[in-house]
Amino acid sequence: MNGPNAKWLNKVRWDEHGLVPVIAQEASTGDVLMFAWMNRDALERTAQLGEAVYWSRSRKKLWHKGEESGHVQKVLEMRLDCDEDVILLKIEQAGGIACHTGRHSCFFQKFDGAQWTAADPVLRDPQQIYSTPKTPE
Amino acid sequence: MNGPNAKWLNKVRWDEHGLVPVIAQEASTGDVLMFAWMNRDALERTAQLGEAVYWSRSRKKLWHKGEESGHVQKVLEMRLDCDEDVILLKIEQAGGIACHTGRHSCFFQKFDGAQWTAADPVLRDPQQIYSTPKTPE
Repeated sequence: MNGPNAKWLNKVRWDEHGLVPVIAQEASTGDVLMFAWMNRDALERTAQLGEAVYWSRSRKKLWHKGEESGHVQKVLEMRLDCDEDVILLKIEQAGGIACHTGRHSCFFQKFDGAQWTAADPVLRDPQQIYSTPKTPE
Repeated sequence: MNGPNAKWLNKVRWDEHGLVPVIAQEASTGDVLMFAWMNRDALERTAQLGEAVYWSRSRKKLWHKGEESGHVQKVLEMRLDCDEDVILLKIEQAGGIACHTGRHSCFFQKFDGAQWTAADPVLRDPQQIYSTPKTPE
């Protein structure tokens, strides 16, 4: 199934930067936990490893989610959309925390009709999660 | 809350094309139904209308989802992620069909370890949904 010329990798319509958007959804709750990007190598490694490996656009390198925090994402299922340019992962979230702010989901800011307000609790202090101060992807 | 200079619109980190990725999730089931893009105008109209309005990158115009098919998306909640560059909509999907192929969700192709295989049924023939042959966004 693998190797850089694998048909299943070719089926994905990589964008002009060689990336595809990826949605990570918690399988047990249905909660959408985060959104990130993969390049071809990241997708192949994700399939091999069974854990989410993204491409960090800011750090310009592969990012095995949880490598520092321990909050790895076990991949239970991978889906591709009709246009073949977006991937959906059904995952199991280690530690129950996907967000670098220490929250369950990255989508914690809710629109109340006038502004975006933090609506979900911090489950763990980021200073306890990361040895070095953390910035978003 | 509105007008082009609204603070809540400024909080979104629009990309180099003035767009933000948007995930549409069915509120009742938790199913991720589709992924699309919005520009500033689309997001403002979505908030005003209470129905999803996207930016069609291929047609280069605003796209009130369901305008042709009737499969509008009533927006129950809008969320913004930690990086403020991705939006999550909790929606009610009219007709139970989000995909232009006549399926419930656009994410109907499942990876089986070697290839992506259509795993969900077509609920309605696209020829019955659209007056003109339909291509993806």
